[in-house]
Amino acid sequence: MRSAAFGRRGIPRDFIQSRLPRQISFTLEAECPETRARAGILHTAHGDIPTPIFMPVGTQGTVKGLSQRDLWEDLQAPIILSNTYHLYLRPGHELIGQFGGLHQFMNWPGAILTDSGGYQVFSLSELRRVTEEGVTFQSHLDGATHRFTPASTVDVQLALGSDVMMVLDECPPYPVGHEFGRASMERTVRWAQQALEHYNGRIAASPPRQALFPIVQGSFFADLRRECARRLVELDADGYAVGGLSVGEPRPLSMEMVEATEDILPRDRPRYAMGVGMPHELAEYVARGIDMMDCVLPTRNARNGWLFTSEGRVVIKHAAHRDDPRPLDPECKCYTCRNHSRAYLRHLFQAGEMLFASLATRHNLQRYLDIMREIRQSILLGQFPQYLRTTRERHTLTSTVPGQV
Amino acid sequence: MRSAAFGRRGIPRDFIQSRLPRQISFTLEAECPETRARAGILHTAHGDIPTPIFMPVGTQGTVKGLSQRDLWEDLQAPIILSNTYHLYLRPGHELIGQFGGLHQFMNWPGAILTDSGGYQVFSLSELRRVTEEGVTFQSHLDGATHRFTPASTVDVQLALGSDVMMVLDECPPYPVGHEFGRASMERTVRWAQQALEHYNGRIAASPPRQALFPIVQGSFFADLRRECARRLVELDADGYAVGGLSVGEPRPLSMEMVEATEDILPRDRPRYAMGVGMPHELAEYVARGIDMMDCVLPTRNARNGWLFTSEGRVVIKHAAHRDDPRPLDPECKCYTCRNHSRAYLRHLFQAGEMLFASLATRHNLQRYLDIMREIRQSILLGQFPQYLRTTRERHTLTSTVPGQV
Repeated sequence: MRSAAFGRRGIPRDFIQSRLPRQISFTLEAECPETRARAGILHTAHGDIPTPIFMPVGTQGTVKGLSQRDLWEDLQAPIILSNTYHLYLRPGHELIGQFGGLHQFMNWPGAILTDSGGYQVFSLSELRRVTEEGVTFQSHLDGATHRFTPASTVDVQLALGSDVMMVLDECPPYPVGHEFGRASMERTVRWAQQALEHYNGRIAASPPRQALFPIVQGSFFADLRRECARRLVELDADGYAVGGLSVGEPRPLSMEMVEATEDILPRDRPRYAMGVGMPHELAEYVARGIDMMDCVLPTRNARNGWLFTSEGRVVIKHAAHRDDPRPLDPECKCYTCRNHSRAYLRHLFQAGEMLFASLATRHNLQRYLDIMREIRQSILLGQFPQYLRTTRERHTLTSTVPGQV
Repeated sequence: MRSAAFGRRGIPRDFIQSRLPRQISFTLEAECPETRARAGILHTAHGDIPTPIFMPVGTQGTVKGLSQRDLWEDLQAPIILSNTYHLYLRPGHELIGQFGGLHQFMNWPGAILTDSGGYQVFSLSELRRVTEEGVTFQSHLDGATHRFTPASTVDVQLALGSDVMMVLDECPPYPVGHEFGRASMERTVRWAQQALEHYNGRIAASPPRQALFPIVQGSFFADLRRECARRLVELDADGYAVGGLSVGEPRPLSMEMVEATEDILPRDRPRYAMGVGMPHELAEYVARGIDMMDCVLPTRNARNGWLFTSEGRVVIKHAAHRDDPRPLDPECKCYTCRNHSRAYLRHLFQAGEMLFASLATRHNLQRYLDIMREIRQSILLGQFPQYLRTTRERHTLTSTVPGQV
């Protein structure tokens, strides 16, 4: 009976999933023979995303300092990240839902990934209370009390229409003890189960256009991370994230935590390292099996005058740039480097002009996206191990050159 | 002896001026038979500028919130204004001169007009002392003492390379008595004479690429304005400005002051009303013989959420725009109106996002430039009187509609 293949009739979930045309899928194109690096394509309803990919952060439905056209046409960013916590509080997911979702609301043709809001609740909201049901918190905007549950954050993200949604997780600070780490990890697993269950109920009627990724937690204990990953894999999700990184830990620890779960996470699903990293670290995460990354570093540092170039970092306020007619990075093809000198950029920065933030953000994001394109290309050509070695050598070199910061 | 026509040989100044290929000139294309409105072209080394024209203000070598590409390609602004006072203090005209001038420094292909710095000295600098030689003032940035003289501000502007330079003038506050107004006006005339003399000496060696406009002052006394204009006309400058407006006077007074000198200023030279006006006033100034205008209103108001549309003003923070899917102005072709809803703009404004300033500035400048294009077209077609009447009727209408601000 072929009609039995169409949902809401008690057909086993796995069968429905395998028959419904899923609009989010992942194709593996190449794997590095030496490292765990992979190149692939994440297919979404808003375009095919070549991986590994870096996702610019557009917290409140805008990447600070850029227009959507700058992002789409100039930088050719195929996917951006936006924050559920912020959009939920302002302007509200119902309002965005009225517009048909965040893509329409902000007029963004590419794909969108949203986090669950959990991280912001833990980092921005002073008063919060975690229970088995979810987390109650006060808005950092007006102090009003709100509550996120595993199901409610799925509902919010379904209203936002994001191509990739995240489950609610608990993101412990650094450091915590093993016992706290375990309790928190187990709660995150239970929340992931509840979120996926709610999600499967909500999408049963139609082919899912929005994927939902669980998040591997477990603080900085490899055993907890591995146990968490094993239990989340049972949920058979469209992809997996590694969360709880960049919370103040020594950088090598983040890498270790990613490494710890690489062999557990399914090879045919995308893996997303949340909130990382510095330019020289991007290849390191890719070498550990990561396909997707996001980070505020390129955008936030840009606004603070801290620029990433192929020759190392440039702190634009330094007097050395005062009369420097050269572009930030002679190898860069971004709008900023094609049109403006370091001297002009320094003038804009010193004068507190908005155009600085805009030009600096373009450049830093171009740098990140270029690095990811180079990484992807090197994987496809079987040259990633050399690329990784060169990256490490150059980083050692540029980070010890006098005058570089 | 044809060689006598080439400078530096004691040839009378007027003769040199008439023979040297001047790179700034003005062609009158049409005059309104009823009003004093004119359409023309200001020819500069950086392009031909159709007049009447509105010049966006780029105080510190950037129009706040826009890239040069936004201004040049999207808005098609042929000329912008920049402030000598600000650029002199930071980054300094010597530095900009090293780059070959402001066009190169900021990478702007169009024309640039710079003011003399006089207005900012009188409005921004707390401690200032005016003597016959010039004005001594303290920098608003670091309190250091500086001095502008009629000759020195020409030198600064020659270093900046602006296509149109302004003489140092004294801009009295409102109100002042007739006696103060006369003394100040007479000083402005003497300064203009000194500035032109210095300028003629500096440019004698080569065809002038940069014009120098004197500024009609005289507070709000028509007799002083007329006397000032008569004495400045004797200097036979490339164009004339009307300054000292928008200093807190009732708006009709500014118009009267422009009117007072219209018949004195030479018909074949461009006239520039400094620092005006509101959208509905643009046609009023043109009707009084003005060819060029600048004002911070469209850019500053944009950043404050105050938008000008063909249907009147829109204050974007109003709750009415919260879920409004319409563009700011359905008749506008700007990037903002083509791409974004009022609801998204309001969200960006409420969230304090930079993109709001950028999108709002694009729109407001498009509005001003569109109005000037409409005005020019109506003059060329002989329909300016009707255009002016319609503008007045619409303004009366929109300024009395409830809910409009």
